[in-house]
Amino acid sequence: MLSKRSAVEPFRAMDVMSAAFALERQGRSIIHMEVGEPGAPTPRVVREAAMAAIASGRVRYTEALGTPALRARIATHYAERYGVAVSPERVVVATGSSAAFNLAFLAFFDPGDRIGMPTPGYPAYRNILAALGLEVVEIPTGPETRWAVTPEMLAEIQRDRPLKGLIVASPANPSGTMIQPPALKALVESCDALGIRLIMDEIYHGLVYGGETATALAFTEQAVVVNSFSKYYCMTGWRVGWMVVPQPAVRAIECIAQNLSISVNSLSQTAALAAFDAVDELELVKAGYAANRELLLRRLPEAGLDDVLPVDGAFYIYANVRKFTNDSMDFARRMLTEAGVATTPGLDFDPARGAGYIRLSFAGTTPEMDEAVTRIAGWIGR
Amino acid sequence: MLSKRSAVEPFRAMDVMSAAFALERQGRSIIHMEVGEPGAPTPRVVREAAMAAIASGRVRYTEALGTPALRARIATHYAERYGVAVSPERVVVATGSSAAFNLAFLAFFDPGDRIGMPTPGYPAYRNILAALGLEVVEIPTGPETRWAVTPEMLAEIQRDRPLKGLIVASPANPSGTMIQPPALKALVESCDALGIRLIMDEIYHGLVYGGETATALAFTEQAVVVNSFSKYYCMTGWRVGWMVVPQPAVRAIECIAQNLSISVNSLSQTAALAAFDAVDELELVKAGYAANRELLLRRLPEAGLDDVLPVDGAFYIYANVRKFTNDSMDFARRMLTEAGVATTPGLDFDPARGAGYIRLSFAGTTPEMDEAVTRIAGWIGR
Repeated sequence: MLSKRSAVEPFRAMDVMSAAFALERQGRSIIHMEVGEPGAPTPRVVREAAMAAIASGRVRYTEALGTPALRARIATHYAERYGVAVSPERVVVATGSSAAFNLAFLAFFDPGDRIGMPTPGYPAYRNILAALGLEVVEIPTGPETRWAVTPEMLAEIQRDRPLKGLIVASPANPSGTMIQPPALKALVESCDALGIRLIMDEIYHGLVYGGETATALAFTEQAVVVNSFSKYYCMTGWRVGWMVVPQPAVRAIECIAQNLSISVNSLSQTAALAAFDAVDELELVKAGYAANRELLLRRLPEAGLDDVLPVDGAFYIYANVRKFTNDSMDFARRMLTEAGVATTPGLDFDPARGAGYIRLSFAGTTPEMDEAVTRIAGWIGR
Repeated sequence: MLSKRSAVEPFRAMDVMSAAFALERQGRSIIHMEVGEPGAPTPRVVREAAMAAIASGRVRYTEALGTPALRARIATHYAERYGVAVSPERVVVATGSSAAFNLAFLAFFDPGDRIGMPTPGYPAYRNILAALGLEVVEIPTGPETRWAVTPEMLAEIQRDRPLKGLIVASPANPSGTMIQPPALKALVESCDALGIRLIMDEIYHGLVYGGETATALAFTEQAVVVNSFSKYYCMTGWRVGWMVVPQPAVRAIECIAQNLSISVNSLSQTAALAAFDAVDELELVKAGYAANRELLLRRLPEAGLDDVLPVDGAFYIYANVRKFTNDSMDFARRMLTEAGVATTPGLDFDPARGAGYIRLSFAGTTPEMDEAVTRIAGWIGR
């Protein structure tokens, strides 16, 4: 009765979250390290802007591509933050980065097209691509390239069965590992030269613990750059993100968005407009992540978790647990029910090697992180 | 550079709305009859619930299928309103009915499947189906069947090249025309007998100006029934709707939703939960639509618009303008710029015959509707 394409893999992080919520409803204490979600509330100025919009009573459809005010403000953000000129017309507001990816995939790729993505990587890409009839080409990465796809890898793939597109995140999920600006520039230029449409996931920009951050937009107008208010701006539940697209694609994406979603939540758009004024509050939140990161990198070895990918940014630690298990799903499930710590099994991010990894999100509070390590160490020690 | 499937028709109502917004920013007075959007604000209790949620600061990811509280409340709505038992597990909360349709299409249909829809009908169905690789089979309807698809039509199509699915709205968009309960029962049973998955659009339920309203769920557990908080509940900009699906499809839809959207806006879900308590306020809004409907049906003939489809429900009038134009897009564009009244060209709803129709939404205030007819009559009279 169901379609073939409905045989979509679960996003296991969400399944763990549902299981964690169910345990909490039974009165259990659970520390949430499974979902990439800031523990901090939405910034005050953002909430005030939303309240004012609600008080006005006007929470209505907007232009399908987003309100002109928000699109303009996002364009300005690229000038302020990166010194890159972006026309507001190229900005597309979407219902979270999830909707932006879906729009981009529909706009640029036809069924049967081959789309590359590094592993470990964000599973929803793979699962949405598959549902849309696209062939996912996993590109395994390892420490020898600092977990990055390189121009050399792409050149080799193109000689054989070419890619139409490539999806890269930096800082990456599940690892937080970043592609340094010179390597990013080389990757972007290689995609342009090889005719590969680069879909660049920059949703963890703003959350980098040292060094420079470059946007792919600094090096090309051909890439699609996706970003979100969920992570740095602490607005997960508001479901609002954006992308910057090549100018010639704007009208096609507008038509798809009109039909697929009518418009993005108008309250969230009003709220997001204020998010750029919340930097002082958000930098304090980020300082908390930095403290969590240091705490975990210092204390996780106590629990035997001493093999992790480079944590340059985001709020994730992707840890090798192969010495404890060959089944990270079972490992995560038992850690949840027995130790009260929710984590995500690596299978979400890497079908081939993920059975030996788990992802821990450190977006909660520092005392929570401290308690989590204590619980994990005690549980593993048993 | 773009995909073939990105060649999606615009939703012209949205293009007209964008043009209308642009004229308003220039200081022009525009009466909005182009988009199906209540003029009334979101009900007070709904806004209060949202404000309380914002004040708490917790606006976070929820379960992908929706919060358990909202799913349960929607299930109860079917018992209260129609006397039909629906398990909360079968309820899927979505980012508006738009997202619900997309999820249903992905879950039930594979590329190449033939999906029927009556014309005139809602264009986003057709355009999303096409983007997902599905073959749209338009089924022209006319006054001889009161603009409804009938079991006889389906039986004839199935003998030749069978449909996998059928999408029907009642009350319909763009006409407001309703399938009466006995005809609905016959249609539902015919779909089940012929192996056609019925996707039933009930988003205008609650807005019916006389007679009984039945839900397809009263006659089958095989149909997918889509509904929304946008129309009766005056929550367009909040982007929240739902569907009730056959039990065996729930998990597949959950996996697709996890990957495609993570979760629905949590503020909108909290707000929607309160919407069921806003009936007193909403019935007053509906009384306003009823007054608008009577006014337009009485006065539109002054403007020469005397040939309209039966307006049983919703807040639309689908009017024949063939005696004035063979190009309803041009007609609507000129009516907007010259008379300051925004309407939607029939081409959105009926590629074959829509050049001779326009849709007028009467979801605004009664004084606006009165002024609109005066403007239209004066403009047509010139």
